Amino acid sequence: MRLSPAIQELVQALRLLPGVGPKSAQRMTFQLLERQREGALRLAQALTDAVEKVGHCNQCRTLTEEQTCAICADAKRRDSGLLCIVETPADVLAIEQTGQYQGCYFVLMGHLSPLDGIGPEDIGLDVLAKRLQQEAIEEVILATNPTVEGEATAHFIADLARSRNIRTSRIAHGVPVGGELEYVDQATLGHAFSGRKVIDHN
Amino acid sequence: MRLSPAIQELVQALRLLPGVGPKSAQRMTFQLLERQREGALRLAQALTDAVEKVGHCNQCRTLTEEQTCAICADAKRRDSGLLCIVETPADVLAIEQTGQYQGCYFVLMGHLSPLDGIGPEDIGLDVLAKRLQQEAIEEVILATNPTVEGEATAHFIADLARSRNIRTSRIAHGVPVGGELEYVDQATLGHAFSGRKVIDHN
Repeated sequence: MRLSPAIQELVQALRLLPGVGPKSAQRMTFQLLERQREGALRLAQALTDAVEKVGHCNQCRTLTEEQTCAICADAKRRDSGLLCIVETPADVLAIEQTGQYQGCYFVLMGHLSPLDGIGPEDIGLDVLAKRLQQEAIEEVILATNPTVEGEATAHFIADLARSRNIRTSRIAHGVPVGGELEYVDQATLGHAFSGRKVIDHN
Repeated sequence: MRLSPAIQELVQALRLLPGVGPKSAQRMTFQLLERQREGALRLAQALTDAVEKVGHCNQCRTLTEEQTCAICADAKRRDSGLLCIVETPADVLAIEQTGQYQGCYFVLMGHLSPLDGIGPEDIGLDVLAKRLQQEAIEEVILATNPTVEGEATAHFIADLARSRNIRTSRIAHGVPVGGELEYVDQATLGHAFSGRKVIDHN
């Protein structure tokens, strides 16, 4: 039995969502059509609105509806002189949730990946270079992912900042809080040892 | 940090989908906005279309865009004299995938549940009674779920069919194919024994 065309198309379209396979898409379709028709229309509207309105912040490249996102528009944060480099808007959100950081961000929207043809300009490093030149940035904090590409990207940006004499730091790698040593991988444990901190007895 | 309103609304709207929590909704939102804007618009269109076009089959109550669904419109299936009662359109799909059944369906779109105020007419049993009266139905196959409500609904429909002298059957309960006896629950194993079949040596 083939589902009727409009139902079939909805199942297919839902499969575009990350993590949604054929069975989940079918379940979502039936759920929406049987019990949540208003919800389905609300979702359709939200999708159209978001695609139409959301663009990139002209300062940090994160996703936003404004010209400049709320963080970049905050004078206190701009004056901090801190610029944290992350790969995606989701990373900004994760860091914001710690409540530990009060500076600005620069969102690469990806990482260097020469094999996929993604070079420095594709991740906005020309814009970043200009900002490092023009603004009073005191420290660049590299918070790209601890993957091969993320590390390569961090190195590249570190060079960029060094050539302008700007202090550059990388977020610490080590044992995750709440984890058990036994289950931590070699590389992480190596980092945890090489990055150990002296306990100050005073 | 609050996400900007259009992004926030999309995250909220995606959470209406079954099985989608706050983290998944966020991931879907960023994925759509960063990499799948066309896909997002396609999904919006599919949602609007489906809600607008899809209604219920006037014969079996399943979800379809037509007046009468493809199965009910098939004369060969109608002439089979078999009517299978299921709870949802997803059940129809599951049974169709076995390729074993060539009759028609009647979809209750739920089950009897007096505590939730769902009575016989809410699941279309008045329509079913009329069909049993008017059509040449030889056998009613009860394929409601093997839950308390599903069994109660099956009993109710069995009475309905008996009063019209129509043969009524219930799909077999037993050990699932590929399962191991050790892990099968008591009730199922009980059914498997009481419903055992004599092996015909000819």
